Amino acid sequence: MTDAPSDNDDAAALMRLALAQARLAEAAGDVPIGAVIARDGKVIAAAHNRRIIDADPTAHAEILAIRAAARVIGDWRLTGCTLAVTLEPCPMCAGAIVLARIERLIYGPADPKAGAVDTLYRLCSDDRLNHRVEVMGGVLAEPCGRLLSDFFRRQRQAGKR
Amino acid sequence: MTDAPSDNDDAAALMRLALAQARLAEAAGDVPIGAVIARDGKVIAAAHNRRIIDADPTAHAEILAIRAAARVIGDWRLTGCTLAVTLEPCPMCAGAIVLARIERLIYGPADPKAGAVDTLYRLCSDDRLNHRVEVMGGVLAEPCGRLLSDFFRRQRQAGKR
Repeated sequence: MTDAPSDNDDAAALMRLALAQARLAEAAGDVPIGAVIARDGKVIAAAHNRRIIDADPTAHAEILAIRAAARVIGDWRLTGCTLAVTLEPCPMCAGAIVLARIERLIYGPADPKAGAVDTLYRLCSDDRLNHRVEVMGGVLAEPCGRLLSDFFRRQRQAGKR
Repeated sequence: MTDAPSDNDDAAALMRLALAQARLAEAAGDVPIGAVIARDGKVIAAAHNRRIIDADPTAHAEILAIRAAARVIGDWRLTGCTLAVTLEPCPMCAGAIVLARIERLIYGPADPKAGAVDTLYRLCSDDRLNHRVEVMGGVLAEPCGRLLSDFFRRQRQAGKR
């Protein structure tokens, strides 16, 4: 047993679980982004975006998954954990991933508007901060991105903001 | 009545409340950082760092104050709110401040290790993100910083890490 997915197949398997979480967010009327955290080959936390549902600006999928995983482990250090999320993390979430000492990050499409892992910032690989994260982007980027673009198209059609 | 502190005296008054929160964190054995959020001249949320207390890597004072203020307002948008915190926010917290649409940020000393407002990054004034924050740093920097340096000195003396 390995302590993290060791290849692309394992990364895709985790991303499929994150996608299932994203669909739950969509069903609840929130922006469809999902995340899971695995350790020692087991999923220990799963969450989806709840910003609108909970009226909480910090309730991104990654933050909720990190908090859930810390409850499971009983420590704020998520050493040896892999986080998979269906969109490149924003500055808040990339910052939280570094603070939580996540070992490996797997994400779907890049986020040109707020991506803080590879696009606008590179928070997970900044030598000035006290932790670096192994990053694999672009995993199942097409279905992850399609879920988001379909959601926003429907929102526009419905005249919502 | 103004909707935010209009001068240095008001900023210092909010920071004294944030300092009182920081002392509560210290009394509970956590790193002494505190935050308050005010709107329309009234304090609507106050919180202190609980990372160790709650074993939650996201439980920084700013995040907890933002979540509390959103519960009070019933909206993820903290429009017109001022946040005062006893240390320059890290990337996670600066990102959350932008996401929450906080209008004004007041902070104590700069953080050379992780400051993401003016020091390592300038997340609150990045035109590529969808919100900018009015920032006033260095408010009561001396007592805020002393609380932290005294705490870490005692930790080192006690041989804790």
